[in-house]
Amino acid sequence: MNFEPYGCPIRFGAHVLGDRWCLMIIRDLMFKKRNYFRDFLEAGEGISTNILSDRLLRLEEANIISKSQDPEHGKRYIYRLTKKGISLVPVMLELMKWAAEFDEDTEMPKSFVKRLRKDSNKLAEEVSSKLRAAE
Amino acid sequence: MNFEPYGCPIRFGAHVLGDRWCLMIIRDLMFKKRNYFRDFLEAGEGISTNILSDRLLRLEEANIISKSQDPEHGKRYIYRLTKKGISLVPVMLELMKWAAEFDEDTEMPKSFVKRLRKDSNKLAEEVSSKLRAAE
Repeated sequence: MNFEPYGCPIRFGAHVLGDRWCLMIIRDLMFKKRNYFRDFLEAGEGISTNILSDRLLRLEEANIISKSQDPEHGKRYIYRLTKKGISLVPVMLELMKWAAEFDEDTEMPKSFVKRLRKDSNKLAEEVSSKLRAAE
Repeated sequence: MNFEPYGCPIRFGAHVLGDRWCLMIIRDLMFKKRNYFRDFLEAGEGISTNILSDRLLRLEEANIISKSQDPEHGKRYIYRLTKKGISLVPVMLELMKWAAEFDEDTEMPKSFVKRLRKDSNKLAEEVSSKLRAAE
């Protein structure tokens, strides 16, 4: 990234969210239990290995995700959202609420959309504490 | 964009928000009272005219913004957020709340951050109704 993101809050957010691949990776970590390089690669979005490596590095440098050796498979790295990454849950839920309103082909179950509309704060807290527990 | 955004809500959102220039244009329309091509160009983000044209078209095609002849200057176009664009206010406010927490150099006034944290729903309603009134 060839720009200085600090100061303006939207520019600051755009540094990590203003890229569709970063958004997909954050989604996978946050909602899809995908934590490995191969998981992101096979998530069906058609990302290439070099773009994926680049975005994982960018997210790691921005302290949104952490990379560590998988305790179960020494040679494999496991990616997780950091505290700063988990704090993006409310942003992602608001985006989902927006999509529920404007995407007629949304694949979100109606029961989930109902919860999202009724009490997204509580839902955000639930999702966040699950993620914190897995840290 | 060479992908079909529908179905997944984050993919759907990424179609317009997963690009830092689109985010900057939405910010300018939403919070900065910038409504003209020249305004976006001179917003200090260093966007080029061809990228700006491309992103305005993308946002127009996604029905996030509308383009119409400026009633005061027949030769000039005025850009505005549509209903679908205005509905992104809560997403942008959540992003600002996140930036307030993690950007030590944030330029947001403390009083604004306080309001954002205390009652972002009410703030979202205020911002949205001002934008609707200007439609």
